[in-house]
Amino acid sequence: MPAEAPLLGAIEAGGTKFVLGVGTGADAIVDQVQIPTRDPETTLAETIAFFRKHPGLAAIGIGSFGPLERDRSAAKWGHILATPKPGWSDCDLAGTIARALGVPVAFDTDVNAAALAEARLGAARDAKVSVYVTIGTGIGGGVIADGRIVGGTGHPELGHMRPRRAPDDREFAGHCPFHGDCLEGLASGPAIIARWGQSLSHLAPDHDAHGIIAGYLAEMCNTLRAALAPDAIALGGGVMGTPGLFERIVAEAGTCDGGYFALSAEKVIRRPALAPISGLAGAFLLAADLL
Amino acid sequence: MPAEAPLLGAIEAGGTKFVLGVGTGADAIVDQVQIPTRDPETTLAETIAFFRKHPGLAAIGIGSFGPLERDRSAAKWGHILATPKPGWSDCDLAGTIARALGVPVAFDTDVNAAALAEARLGAARDAKVSVYVTIGTGIGGGVIADGRIVGGTGHPELGHMRPRRAPDDREFAGHCPFHGDCLEGLASGPAIIARWGQSLSHLAPDHDAHGIIAGYLAEMCNTLRAALAPDAIALGGGVMGTPGLFERIVAEAGTCDGGYFALSAEKVIRRPALAPISGLAGAFLLAADLL
Repeated sequence: MPAEAPLLGAIEAGGTKFVLGVGTGADAIVDQVQIPTRDPETTLAETIAFFRKHPGLAAIGIGSFGPLERDRSAAKWGHILATPKPGWSDCDLAGTIARALGVPVAFDTDVNAAALAEARLGAARDAKVSVYVTIGTGIGGGVIADGRIVGGTGHPELGHMRPRRAPDDREFAGHCPFHGDCLEGLASGPAIIARWGQSLSHLAPDHDAHGIIAGYLAEMCNTLRAALAPDAIALGGGVMGTPGLFERIVAEAGTCDGGYFALSAEKVIRRPALAPISGLAGAFLLAADLL
Repeated sequence: MPAEAPLLGAIEAGGTKFVLGVGTGADAIVDQVQIPTRDPETTLAETIAFFRKHPGLAAIGIGSFGPLERDRSAAKWGHILATPKPGWSDCDLAGTIARALGVPVAFDTDVNAAALAEARLGAARDAKVSVYVTIGTGIGGGVIADGRIVGGTGHPELGHMRPRRAPDDREFAGHCPFHGDCLEGLASGPAIIARWGQSLSHLAPDHDAHGIIAGYLAEMCNTLRAALAPDAIALGGGVMGTPGLFERIVAEAGTCDGGYFALSAEKVIRRPALAPISGLAGAFLLAADLL
């Protein structure tokens, strides 16, 4: 008989909410709560109080909003780096929790965690190489190869690649404070609202916005296919909830790739299987991998 | 005392020449020849004849031009796929050599092999995640994470991403038969000659071409930084021999990234350390990894 699976903690640390879970994995959660993201002191105190109710945790995994320091050998490991989010720049998120609870902590981006979960348990289970992208308040993603996060000193910033502008769409200057019309500045939820005054799902189905956004996200998929030849790209996040958007992206990616890649756009581009808990599921995996 | 290192064969199979080597590794080559790439029958017969002079090979590694089938579980493993190169489409490159010599054969793209060599032995030795890109007759590359090739069913086709066109450079339609003005259609050696009648190194140092090409290659570097956060990107190939081009790319990438990435362009973008034998060195590593 196998030994009893260890009890783990998981944190999906987002810009608007923290989701906290305890269990032996995402399929066996014994307690889960959601708290609003306020200042670091309040938020971390509530987080620590939740986990104190569950003694005996073997490890805690954190998938967090970024930018952050994921390199264990770095002095700032576990910290949030420079962020526009008030109060959170330089917050020692992982270290504070590890010290308060005396438990080993794993720390990575929320999107790397979600990518790991989709690769091991979800939409990309059959893939040797896969990418998870969330298109929502921001655009971010993670890359998995052979069941492991592809990550060096930094972490991907998928939203900040610059897609080719469509010939009939060169006016909008973009909404990214760093790069203007990078992908996030063109196709994130706030960029769409800044441009058209409403979210994509509220714009009429025949509005030009649908084709424009699908085009930029298709371009992103094809850039990832050229760079990495992933077997799967899972597209999640609030913007992807827009009816018809997924189908438009797949069609557009298949049209503009020139039939050049080994796998078709239809085969590669997928919906996440674990949403909305991809990130929390990944945080459990990060914790389990520590042991 | 360690056992004697096994004798290995290595093939860098290029579109114009095959480089063949025998040794215990790239730093201990006992025999090396170069033969012109003619039709498959002639070229493979000469290749096999060379290795027959070296009995006792433990394995042979092949880094080949593509597109090719690198998936060992696929029926067409070891084959060149559809290529404009006359006679080579559907050639069973790896299988022919394995059967003729009775030796285990490893098979991957020339650029994946070069990327592996630069990551383990060369310019990216300190990197957890690295990319090698060659800019020459074509543009191609490979991605390495934790000393292993990142590869799924297919292989990257880095040259076929579409960089954003510069505002003052939207006229040239591009030279890629599949995509027109993809990166390879804009910045490969043949694209440069098709456009300006000469190679980049023969155009006057104040010719606009230098800035245009540097801009597209800087864009490629920043796209890779956004997608993967590599610790190192090594830029090789004939076009990179143009005086001043490397420096222009680094400067341009550093200017247009908005300071957003964890590592600076100066730190990430590098020259290959093993050129011109990056590919052959990688083929030795592919062979060694089989054992």
